[in-house]
Amino acid sequence: MDYIIRDAKPEDCVEIMRLITELAEYEKLPEQVQLDAESLREDGFGTTNPFYKCLVAELTSGHKTKEGHTLVAYAMYYFTYSTWLGRSIYVEDIYVMPECRAKGIGHGLLQKIAKIAVEQKCKYLQLVVLDWNKLATEFYIRRGCTDLTTKEGWSLFRFELDALNKLAEGDDRN
Amino acid sequence: MDYIIRDAKPEDCVEIMRLITELAEYEKLPEQVQLDAESLREDGFGTTNPFYKCLVAELTSGHKTKEGHTLVAYAMYYFTYSTWLGRSIYVEDIYVMPECRAKGIGHGLLQKIAKIAVEQKCKYLQLVVLDWNKLATEFYIRRGCTDLTTKEGWSLFRFELDALNKLAEGDDRN
Repeated sequence: MDYIIRDAKPEDCVEIMRLITELAEYEKLPEQVQLDAESLREDGFGTTNPFYKCLVAELTSGHKTKEGHTLVAYAMYYFTYSTWLGRSIYVEDIYVMPECRAKGIGHGLLQKIAKIAVEQKCKYLQLVVLDWNKLATEFYIRRGCTDLTTKEGWSLFRFELDALNKLAEGDDRN
Repeated sequence: MDYIIRDAKPEDCVEIMRLITELAEYEKLPEQVQLDAESLREDGFGTTNPFYKCLVAELTSGHKTKEGHTLVAYAMYYFTYSTWLGRSIYVEDIYVMPECRAKGIGHGLLQKIAKIAVEQKCKYLQLVVLDWNKLATEFYIRRGCTDLTTKEGWSLFRFELDALNKLAEGDDRN
């Protein structure tokens, strides 16, 4: 199964959206996907600064999946910043279609992002993993990743949209 | 105690670095601070795209801290992206000097970031908190924040620099 890893293009967004939905189903949270291909295109390739960067894996030499797809994996990332260490990189998602796994595609995507991180003088690469997702946990730990929630006690906090709106609309001082 | 909240300027970086160091000492991890004011300035105000955005709180009307400072708080943030929800915002740090607390400065900084988030059509605001830091935990929870590590089981994973370099330098396929 030949493939290449390349930067995503605007015209990939419909296929990336298909893969995003597949991943959310795997993560048992499909109802949380509210994004659509049009927003994905606008936010990554529109007139303003891109909100994210994305790599894709594409089958070559005429290979296709059972259902006829050639785009079989994606990895979304962006640059972040630490007041302790400076430049850093965050991997939002890496997803490889089940029928294309165990061929090095996931590793290739992660490694490509690691190379970009090193080129940009990033001091670490960060991501979040669901605790029941042993496949992902093992994938990262095997490659030298540290679980900071266990090691240092970091918890992920989120203001969802309702709480965010309320916070933004409140009194200026309270 | 009068103060204003404003965008950080390049010339604030030395003072912001002082506040960053104070926060790391409070978080009991001062040895992790490897950043310096020069890098902070280059990464936020240099020739490339800024890696972060920063707000500061500045005392006005001639007020100063005991040690003569006027910059008493900062909040660093940047835009992020979710493949489920789209645009989002991340708060790296909010820190207010102890002698200037309980005056609404921390809330004012958080609220200003929430307003920026809503203006930019972000769907959530995210951050990480150390589990023993009850002051921070209560500050966010009281304002409607959700602990996603407890609720959904997300853990924070990090490739530190050594692991990142090793990953980047490895074979292209394995």
